Amino acid sequence: MTEVRLPGPVEVIGAGLLGTSIGLALRAAGVEVLLSDVSSEHVRTASGLGAGRPRAPEDRPALVVVAVPPDHLATTIVRSLELTDAVVTDVGSVKSGPVAAIAGHPEVGRYVGSHPMAGSERSGPLAGSAALFEGRPWAITPHDTSDPRAVGVVEALVRTCGGVPIRLSPAEHDKAVARVSHVPHLVSALVAGRLAAAPPDHLLLSGQGVRDVTRVAAGDPALYGQIVDANAPAVLELLAEGREQLDAVIAAVGRADRADLEALLAQGVAGTRAIPGKHGAPERPVAIVYVSVPDHPGELARLFADASAVGVNIEDVHIDHDPGRPVGLVQLVVAEDRADALVDGLHERGWTARV
Amino acid sequence: MTEVRLPGPVEVIGAGLLGTSIGLALRAAGVEVLLSDVSSEHVRTASGLGAGRPRAPEDRPALVVVAVPPDHLATTIVRSLELTDAVVTDVGSVKSGPVAAIAGHPEVGRYVGSHPMAGSERSGPLAGSAALFEGRPWAITPHDTSDPRAVGVVEALVRTCGGVPIRLSPAEHDKAVARVSHVPHLVSALVAGRLAAAPPDHLLLSGQGVRDVTRVAAGDPALYGQIVDANAPAVLELLAEGREQLDAVIAAVGRADRADLEALLAQGVAGTRAIPGKHGAPERPVAIVYVSVPDHPGELARLFADASAVGVNIEDVHIDHDPGRPVGLVQLVVAEDRADALVDGLHERGWTARV
Repeated sequence: MTEVRLPGPVEVIGAGLLGTSIGLALRAAGVEVLLSDVSSEHVRTASGLGAGRPRAPEDRPALVVVAVPPDHLATTIVRSLELTDAVVTDVGSVKSGPVAAIAGHPEVGRYVGSHPMAGSERSGPLAGSAALFEGRPWAITPHDTSDPRAVGVVEALVRTCGGVPIRLSPAEHDKAVARVSHVPHLVSALVAGRLAAAPPDHLLLSGQGVRDVTRVAAGDPALYGQIVDANAPAVLELLAEGREQLDAVIAAVGRADRADLEALLAQGVAGTRAIPGKHGAPERPVAIVYVSVPDHPGELARLFADASAVGVNIEDVHIDHDPGRPVGLVQLVVAEDRADALVDGLHERGWTARV
Repeated sequence: MTEVRLPGPVEVIGAGLLGTSIGLALRAAGVEVLLSDVSSEHVRTASGLGAGRPRAPEDRPALVVVAVPPDHLATTIVRSLELTDAVVTDVGSVKSGPVAAIAGHPEVGRYVGSHPMAGSERSGPLAGSAALFEGRPWAITPHDTSDPRAVGVVEALVRTCGGVPIRLSPAEHDKAVARVSHVPHLVSALVAGRLAAAPPDHLLLSGQGVRDVTRVAAGDPALYGQIVDANAPAVLELLAEGREQLDAVIAAVGRADRADLEALLAQGVAGTRAIPGKHGAPERPVAIVYVSVPDHPGELARLFADASAVGVNIEDVHIDHDPGRPVGLVQLVVAEDRADALVDGLHERGWTARV
């Protein structure tokens, strides 16, 4: 399919975080944006931010983006198909539900679902940003009867917002997000929940590992409850698999079967390697350089300036906070063959660093 | 108890990653170090690095640090108690086993276990570093019949190496590491294992969340199998609790019981808040500032220099790699009341940033 240019104007229904961010990104690209929301306050705020102008009755959008809460998705999509002759998409987290709800509608060909893998801890139009989708995966989920031109228009929307289009069927999408998002979230919450039950002095031994595993569990329970609920079939299938695996681990530990235990752990190693690497390229071998950094403003800046002077590109950074002293241990992830040069260069510049 | 000065010389048995790092840290503090290892090659390498000198038969250590693999811990501790009149400690990951194995020995009072919460993806003496324990928690696990002076000596060892001593009974220690390390590791491996089974295009939707949850699962299966096996009772107790919680989640999702699901997710939120904050202090409210950063050397340095110029202290950093383009999304964690100032300051300096 040749690349379609995004037609305008684009109507955005729902001026929350996602809708406002889409409006801002499209306006930055010079596309005309029409804003609708049940809250006129939200429309005022979003248009005040430059995300578009309030939609007028005589406006004729070429594309409608439905960015309303899950419970209102299907009805809003149907209304948009009936009240306009525009291509219609939505940005909800789960894709099979809306498709099932509008199947059989005569205009269903103009609807193509989508789902940007982007968000924020904050919500509402004030949290919106033109940069929200920059470089983020954005799933496009055509159904069997989607008009190919409509698919092209939604892909043009994604590219114009700076996202990376990834095409999947609605059912595949829902299985994918169950696996890479919903189930990891639930499991993270379970591990974190056991921490809440721990004696506080046990938690003093917490290192970076448990902090990483439980980080996403800090998300809003009401929002994640709603998302998981909407994707229940795919989530339940994976949870059932996970329960079998958990039973296998319990059995292996219980009978001190190291071979079985190692095989289960080795599957985990394989899984971490299956996640696509930086910029979708295969993972390069990397090494971690540890640096002790005093905890006051400017020290990180000095560290990065020195690393840059050494000429080593930093691929990733983690800061490991220690429980007892005002020094942080910073982990700089660099290409494996550059680690020693970085350590030497940092030593020359007075840092305590090691591989 | 008044603080005890670390007596010397200190014998380190096992010149691997931990033993060599302890030798290097003690030598940096001016303490005499004697090295032993079944591999004379390891002793040569470690002493070549400056971690101490090979132990001679006439040497009389005041402290013996046993840093050998788990399977050889108990026998090496007993031999050290019998061949010297020194205080003896070990640095193994699990503490009840060695204590049980040497209980009833007439010299058991001179033994006090310990466990530094530090490590590396690499192993062997060449991976050693004097900075390995800098600011890291280091558990000290006296048993009922430990000599208080011996406890003081081990605490002096920890402080001399730059670690933060945390005193727990052996049984409590093992329960603590089961909860904050071994079980999170196993669960992370289970989630990662399900990724290995996924269609590759599903993994294109992977975001920072699943990367965080599965990061520790990349660890060596043989090593973690051995550690989990040694701590089987505490691990099994928590896995059984986790299985009940998983069943509760499956039931809640299965019957679309949002209240139950939200309650389980809310326990997770409480757990993330229970992890001690930076430097052991209560967590301050923080906000995340997102910045788009081109992926070439020097850009991170420029970002940190600009953040520093704005006068905002960066509490933590995450880099979210996108699957399709040479721009990374960097998350700067800052005090909540400084986030807007940072965004404004970065905008003035030409960055694309948002809260």
